[in-house]
Amino acid sequence: MTIIDIINKKRLNKELTREEISFAVNGYVKGEIKDYQMSSLLMAIVLNGMTDRETIDLTDIMINSGDVLNLKKIDGIIVDKHSTGGVGDKVTLVLGPLLASLGIKIAKMSGRGLGHTGGTIDKLESIKGFNTKISEEEFIEQVNKINIALVSQTANLVPADKKIYALRDVTGTVESIPLIASSIMSKKIASGADIIMLDVKVGNGALMKNIEDARELSHLMVKIGASYRKPTICLLTNMEEPLGYAIGNALEVKEAIETLQGNGPKDLLEVVMTLCSIIIGAVKKIPHNEAESLLFKQINNGKAYKKFEELVAAQGGDINEIKISDKVFSIKSDKSGYINKIDALKLGEIAKKIGAGRNTLEDKIDYEVGLVLTKKVGDYVSKDDELVKVYLKDKDVSISEILSCFKIDKELTNLPKLILDIIK
Amino acid sequence: MTIIDIINKKRLNKELTREEISFAVNGYVKGEIKDYQMSSLLMAIVLNGMTDRETIDLTDIMINSGDVLNLKKIDGIIVDKHSTGGVGDKVTLVLGPLLASLGIKIAKMSGRGLGHTGGTIDKLESIKGFNTKISEEEFIEQVNKINIALVSQTANLVPADKKIYALRDVTGTVESIPLIASSIMSKKIASGADIIMLDVKVGNGALMKNIEDARELSHLMVKIGASYRKPTICLLTNMEEPLGYAIGNALEVKEAIETLQGNGPKDLLEVVMTLCSIIIGAVKKIPHNEAESLLFKQINNGKAYKKFEELVAAQGGDINEIKISDKVFSIKSDKSGYINKIDALKLGEIAKKIGAGRNTLEDKIDYEVGLVLTKKVGDYVSKDDELVKVYLKDKDVSISEILSCFKIDKELTNLPKLILDIIK
Repeated sequence: MTIIDIINKKRLNKELTREEISFAVNGYVKGEIKDYQMSSLLMAIVLNGMTDRETIDLTDIMINSGDVLNLKKIDGIIVDKHSTGGVGDKVTLVLGPLLASLGIKIAKMSGRGLGHTGGTIDKLESIKGFNTKISEEEFIEQVNKINIALVSQTANLVPADKKIYALRDVTGTVESIPLIASSIMSKKIASGADIIMLDVKVGNGALMKNIEDARELSHLMVKIGASYRKPTICLLTNMEEPLGYAIGNALEVKEAIETLQGNGPKDLLEVVMTLCSIIIGAVKKIPHNEAESLLFKQINNGKAYKKFEELVAAQGGDINEIKISDKVFSIKSDKSGYINKIDALKLGEIAKKIGAGRNTLEDKIDYEVGLVLTKKVGDYVSKDDELVKVYLKDKDVSISEILSCFKIDKELTNLPKLILDIIK
Repeated sequence: MTIIDIINKKRLNKELTREEISFAVNGYVKGEIKDYQMSSLLMAIVLNGMTDRETIDLTDIMINSGDVLNLKKIDGIIVDKHSTGGVGDKVTLVLGPLLASLGIKIAKMSGRGLGHTGGTIDKLESIKGFNTKISEEEFIEQVNKINIALVSQTANLVPADKKIYALRDVTGTVESIPLIASSIMSKKIASGADIIMLDVKVGNGALMKNIEDARELSHLMVKIGASYRKPTICLLTNMEEPLGYAIGNALEVKEAIETLQGNGPKDLLEVVMTLCSIIIGAVKKIPHNEAESLLFKQINNGKAYKKFEELVAAQGGDINEIKISDKVFSIKSDKSGYINKIDALKLGEIAKKIGAGRNTLEDKIDYEVGLVLTKKVGDYVSKDDELVKVYLKDKDVSISEILSCFKIDKELTNLPKLILDIIK
C-alpha cells in the first residue's frame, strides 16, 4: 500500500477501505506522508466526497490518534454542546450554567477563536484570573462538585485533526461536509460526553452558507454519533446577522451575564432556550413546554446566574474584574429606513481587525475591545440614530466599513427566522 | 490575489484567468507557493479540468518560466519528434537518421527514462563515448553540418514543468489531459522546432490507456501547437505489446541499427514509416506513397544507416562499442498455443528491475541488460519454444513473472492494429 495508490483510488472516486484511511491519517501524523500528498488526497476527498462508512472510519481513526477522555468518574448524564462557529455566539456561556443549575453535567472542552469567529475559551479568559488549563483530575472533580467545568482542549486530543485542520486551512480544502463532520465529531467523541448537542450555524457568517448543506452535515454528524451510541442532536440556527448585540470577548461575557440574569437579547435567549429544552427533554423525559418553564424558573430565581458565579470562582476568576475599554465611539446611521441585513461575516472580520480575534493561533487577543450593535435586523433607524458602539484600544477602524455592513432600505423585506431546523 | 482564492476558484470549477495561473505557476517556481498548496490546486485541476484557453495559457506561462531555444541559425525546416513513452520504443533512433538523410533538420532534445518507459538519451549513452551534453552552439553547428543532433535537455528549459512534474509524480496528479498536454507542448515549443510530430502511445504500457483519452490529448496538443503557428501532428499507436523485440538500452540501439539496415521488426518499421512519410509529405508536399518509396530507398541504399554512423561519430561515440551482457537466459513457454497478449507495462517493469531503467533520476542504469522477445502477439508457440531472451548482469529475475506477461490460448483472439489514428 502506498499513499499514491490511495490518492489515485480517491481520485477515481472509489471507496477507500478503513486500512487505507488509517494508512493515510496515521502516516501523516507520524510525518511519513508529506503535506503535499495529504493536501492532494484532501482535495480529492473535497471534490469526490466520502461515503458515510468512510467518514465514520475517518472519525474513528482520528479519535484513536490521541487521548480519549474517560469521564466514567462523573456521576450522571454528561452533556457536551458545540457550535460550528458564528459571530457573537456566546450560547455556551449561558447554556452551561443554566443546565448545570438543573443538575445536568457540563464537562466541556472548548476551542479558541480563529478567523472571524470567536472561541469560548478566549471569552472566559477575559475574566481576570479565569484558568482554562486545569488537569483532567481537577476537571472531573469540579464537574462532580458544581456540575460544570469549561476548559481548553488538552494537547493530545485528536492530534490527527489538529494537523489535518491546519493543512486544510492553507490549501483550500476546508469546505467538505465529510471532513467537517469528522473533524467536529472526532473531538466531541474523544471528549467523552454522553449526549452531544450541536448548534449548526447557517448563513453568511457561518461555515455552512445554506440550509441544504447544513442539513446534510447534521444528518452525517447524527449518524456518526449513533455509531458510538451517543445521542447527537443538531439545532440549525441562522447566522445571517450576529447573535445578540455584543461581539468581542469581555463584551460577550457581559451580555451572557445579562442573559443569565433575565435581561438578554431575544435571539440569544431563543437559541439557548431551544437547545436547553431539547436537552432537558432528552435527559428528564419531559415535554418541551414543561422543560422551558423549568428553565425560565432557573433564570428568574437567580440560580442560573449563581451557577455562573460558582463556575468563575471554581476556576479562579474574579467576576468583578471583566474589563471593557473606555474608548467608545458611536457609529450613526447615514440614512433612515429598515435594517434588512447586518453582515455577520464582515462584522466578525472588523472585530478581529480591532483586536478581538486572531489570524494565527500565535496572535494575542485584546479582551477589552469589540462592537455592540444598537439595532438588529428588522429595526427601523432614523438618520443619525446610533447603529453600533465600537470599543477600541490601540487599533483603528473605518466608519464606512462598519456602515457597509448594514443594509438599510425604505421597506422591510427580510425578517430572518432564527431556528431553522432540528435534526436528531 | 492569494493562492487559496485560486485553489477555491478551481475547486468550485470556475475558469482561472491567465493572471491567476501565472500567479500560481510563477509563485511556485519562486518557492513562495508551497508544495502542499500546488498539489491541492493540481488535484482540483485533475478533477475539474481546464478549458482550452486555460491550458494554452498554462503552456505559455510554463514556456516563459525558463529559456526558449532560438534555432533561427539552422537553415531549413526543423522537425521535432516526441513519443509519450512506451516500452521498447526506439522510434527516434531510426526516424532521426532516416529523415536527416533526406535533408530534414532534426534538432532534438530528449529526456531520460523514468519508471517503466525508457528514454532516448539513456539509449544513446549505451554507445561508448556518446556525448549527449553539448553546448547550444555546438548543437546548432552540428545540425547545420549533418542535419541531426540528439542531446539531453538543458537545465533551464521549462523549469516550471520540471518542478510541477516532479510534484505530480508523488501526489497522484499525473493523469490529467490538460496537464499532460501543457507539459509536453511547453517543452516542444521551447525547443524551437518548426514542425512537431507526436507519437501518442495508447494502451496498457502507455500513459493513455484508451483511444478516447489519446484522441482528446492529441486534439488539445494540436490546438496548442496551432496557437504558436507550429504544425503539430499526432500519430496514435498501439502500446499493448512492446514495440519491436528489444527492451533495454544497448539492445534497443542494436535493433534500431538493424532497422536502419533493412532488417528491423515489422511493427517498428510500420510506425517509423508512417511518421516519416507524414513529415516528408508535409515538408516536401508529395503524396504518401511517393514519400514512402523515397524512405525505403534511403534504407536500401545504406544512406539512412550512414547518417546514424555520422551522428554517433559527431557526438563522440564509437559505434563498434555497444556492449551487451553475455549472461543470457532463454525463457521457454510452459504451454502451446497462440499469443493473444504480451503485457508491455509488466515487461517494462521487469526490465527496470534488472537494471535497464530507474525509479528516481539519481538511480544508475545498466546499459547492457534487458529482454529480447522471440515471439510477438499473433505468433504460435509450442511448449518449450523460446519466448524471450533475458540479458542479466548483477540482478536476478523471476521466470514465472516473465511468463505471466504472456497470454497464450488455444485460439488466436486478438491481433491488435498498430496505427490507430492520425490527428492534425
